[in-house]
Amino acid sequence: MGSLDTNPTGLQLQEGAIDGADDVFRPLDSDDVRFYLHKAVDFVADYLQSVESLPVLPDVEPGFLRRLLSQAPPASSAPFDVAIKELRVAVVPGMTHWASPNFFAYFPATNSAAAIAGDLVASAMNTVGFTWQAAPAATELEALALDWLAQLLRLPPAFMSTRGRGDRGGGGVILGTTSEAMLVTLVAARDAALRRTGRGGVSDLPRLAVYATDQTHSAFFKVCRLAGLDPANVRIIRTGAETEYALDAAKLRRRMQADVDAGLVPTYVCATVGTTSTNAVDPIGAIAIVARKFGAWIHVDAAYAGSAFICPEFRHHLDGVERVDSISISPHKWLLTCLDCTCLWVRDTHRLTDSLETNPKYLKNDASDSGAVTDLKDMQVGVGHHFRGLKLWMVMRTYGASKLQQHIRSDVAMARTFEDCVRADERLEVVVPRNFALVCFRVRPRGGMTEEDADEASRELMARLNRSGKAFLAHTVVGGRFVLRFAVGSTLQEERHIRGAWELIKKTTGEVLHGQA
Amino acid sequence: MGSLDTNPTGLQLQEGAIDGADDVFRPLDSDDVRFYLHKAVDFVADYLQSVESLPVLPDVEPGFLRRLLSQAPPASSAPFDVAIKELRVAVVPGMTHWASPNFFAYFPATNSAAAIAGDLVASAMNTVGFTWQAAPAATELEALALDWLAQLLRLPPAFMSTRGRGDRGGGGVILGTTSEAMLVTLVAARDAALRRTGRGGVSDLPRLAVYATDQTHSAFFKVCRLAGLDPANVRIIRTGAETEYALDAAKLRRRMQADVDAGLVPTYVCATVGTTSTNAVDPIGAIAIVARKFGAWIHVDAAYAGSAFICPEFRHHLDGVERVDSISISPHKWLLTCLDCTCLWVRDTHRLTDSLETNPKYLKNDASDSGAVTDLKDMQVGVGHHFRGLKLWMVMRTYGASKLQQHIRSDVAMARTFEDCVRADERLEVVVPRNFALVCFRVRPRGGMTEEDADEASRELMARLNRSGKAFLAHTVVGGRFVLRFAVGSTLQEERHIRGAWELIKKTTGEVLHGQA
Repeated sequence: MGSLDTNPTGLQLQEGAIDGADDVFRPLDSDDVRFYLHKAVDFVADYLQSVESLPVLPDVEPGFLRRLLSQAPPASSAPFDVAIKELRVAVVPGMTHWASPNFFAYFPATNSAAAIAGDLVASAMNTVGFTWQAAPAATELEALALDWLAQLLRLPPAFMSTRGRGDRGGGGVILGTTSEAMLVTLVAARDAALRRTGRGGVSDLPRLAVYATDQTHSAFFKVCRLAGLDPANVRIIRTGAETEYALDAAKLRRRMQADVDAGLVPTYVCATVGTTSTNAVDPIGAIAIVARKFGAWIHVDAAYAGSAFICPEFRHHLDGVERVDSISISPHKWLLTCLDCTCLWVRDTHRLTDSLETNPKYLKNDASDSGAVTDLKDMQVGVGHHFRGLKLWMVMRTYGASKLQQHIRSDVAMARTFEDCVRADERLEVVVPRNFALVCFRVRPRGGMTEEDADEASRELMARLNRSGKAFLAHTVVGGRFVLRFAVGSTLQEERHIRGAWELIKKTTGEVLHGQA
Repeated sequence: MGSLDTNPTGLQLQEGAIDGADDVFRPLDSDDVRFYLHKAVDFVADYLQSVESLPVLPDVEPGFLRRLLSQAPPASSAPFDVAIKELRVAVVPGMTHWASPNFFAYFPATNSAAAIAGDLVASAMNTVGFTWQAAPAATELEALALDWLAQLLRLPPAFMSTRGRGDRGGGGVILGTTSEAMLVTLVAARDAALRRTGRGGVSDLPRLAVYATDQTHSAFFKVCRLAGLDPANVRIIRTGAETEYALDAAKLRRRMQADVDAGLVPTYVCATVGTTSTNAVDPIGAIAIVARKFGAWIHVDAAYAGSAFICPEFRHHLDGVERVDSISISPHKWLLTCLDCTCLWVRDTHRLTDSLETNPKYLKNDASDSGAVTDLKDMQVGVGHHFRGLKLWMVMRTYGASKLQQHIRSDVAMARTFEDCVRADERLEVVVPRNFALVCFRVRPRGGMTEEDADEASRELMARLNRSGKAFLAHTVVGGRFVLRFAVGSTLQEERHIRGAWELIKKTTGEVLHGQA
């Protein structure tokens, strides 16, 4: 880390220029734009080429960065190289490298040259697409990208935006996170339920009930709090190994009926296709049939696994999607599109805009008034809307369906390879059947080991792997047991990384189990 | 537009490659990364150099893009040049050019080479900073950038994150939009009020009252709906010319007292420094004194004008900020940092995290458990968190305080120039005093003209200006009258663009008023 370690502020004092008050400041000077950005491109290309050799999880303590960089903002300007240098010596060594091929934690944040290029163009154009008028091409390219992806996923035509003027048709929006997709649909469902209850207004809020499982993403429960729902009416239906941790539609029906009998109003069901813990797949067709009877909105969270459904062989997991009200998928997880990119499709955009529309005077314009366009501000939490459709369109335009399918299949094949390795090792066990590219495993309780011993050994195994810097895995708890999650798919990953990680896991398991390797 | 017009899909069929199933697909291949990104850099540099010559507001009809691009996603991959070509011939001509120096609408989305470079690096690294462990350097660089900006703005130390372990101290987070900043603080205030009411739970929601003015951004009213507040309890306090459309603290006090007398609970005040319509400045010190007496949370929305307070001569507009609970400022508006970048500072981060914390098993880790770090997921709506701190840090690191101040002052000086031109023309009037870089003006009702005639002439003036392609202005309604907003500050703007726009306005005013030029 060189001089930064010993003299964190020295760099700035030495290299900061003295600004003349008379110099004209042109922050988008075209020479600077070319110089800074070509430099930045070389930096990221070098970074991506070298990231494999860096420890995935850094050995840093909270507060480390303050000791390396100046506590105070610089008074004067500095050559762009200074920022790049500090990035290299202070920031990079303290990063958890999501781009590393040795990253197996959480879900991968996949990425591609086309996506980064698209995002770069969007950053430079810097449009704010709150209304169609404010950004016609950005608004329409986003709609087109969503329709393209819907076609790749074989979503029902009801979710496409190719509708006639004034139709109460479907469509979508690209949001920042799955949480936002859940929030806007939950609020639409909440308001519709409040209108149905007759009395209207928020006084009936305590009567609304919503449904999820013990495997549903924590984001959903937070979103329920944000929307003002009574936590006591958020039904967390228990799952178990008998359904591979998927929601049992019969349990849902009984719970909804009991709520109706108690005077509550079933309002919203959050079904998950590919849960975060274990990639469980809720049976959305069966769930939708139940939920519709009770008038509840059905949302499908397919944040991670959704991207897989561009391959026909995985598409059956979406059977029944023609009966749901909305679905969200995050290409920033598994479709090679950098953050932020969560696609939300709804069957009836008016159900969203009824709750989310705002019409301030300063945004009134002929296109909006004509009803021929949907203004994206009316389908999201915020007003400002970044040009996120560009990177998603760039990815599909450049790679096409076949390369994208190849990408999904390659990840699944690598996960299968890893799964086979685990299954062939009697010291370990695969905890749930693998559905996509996530393998959940743990130390098998053998000989005199209790389940608790196996938990402890699994925990120790993960800690040692992560400390090694050669792999980063996260864990979960399944059926009360500590489980390691091996999530394949970081974009630079090749089979040799899977093999390398497996060798490391084998060796470390032996060390943890005291020479049983 | 060449062949795209006549054969939109031809391009794809001609230039799409046939993918061999055996080719290994490497979406982050380093040669591709360099090739695509250097191409994209040249594209954006050319775009920024030529954008001045493009019509600011395009002459397109809803649906135009579908007629230019393929309706179906490509099956095969295509050279990256194809996407760039379609971007150039189909997308760019349909854009509202926020980057144009002839853009005077809304508020400018200012930008800089350093910010775009920072965003590019963030897109490539693609970290997901939900917890400190998942992104130590990104989490800490964001905190540092917020502390730097807080110092430039002379925010009270209570808003800084340089607190000891376990302190209930202040700090911040970078969010996507002001709406999100309002939502998370409103929910924190709501939950605190519900706890105070004693009974707890959402059944008391209908008793909570919140306060804003008729000039508060529409985002606030949407956020109140999202959080489940009773619309009947959202107090919209009327403003007028006598306070230059700012909130009268005495009116606020009377309204709050009346609500308390009626059994309601004053919960949240949204004060604005630099309203969207006219840049009115609510007196936040006086408001805070009133609101504190009633136990309400005081949030300051300084989305646009906030950036100006890095200059001492404007800082007095923030007097009293030491008494508020939270403040949000969007550097993506006026501090040369591309979207999305809304900075939220709070006096007590625990008041946010109490409402927004989630602790799923798969995110548990030692750093979070130690209490030594704040996990950014607990200060926002979503879980995923993009590395937004990098671009903001890059801007301050590269340009330093003096260049950033120069940027603000230059915009304000240009706005003053424009204001002087309007004031010197008896056919027009400046409607409210200019506070920052926004000038609100309209046709003056003279001779036999009624106020309605002046409204109509102003509306026609704006329509003709915008149709010319040489300028884009938005409007608002002030005191019931139609008003044009001339927002100076698009980053490429120089004094010659202000002079050019003024010449166009003079000429067009003459045409609208039938030869009275």
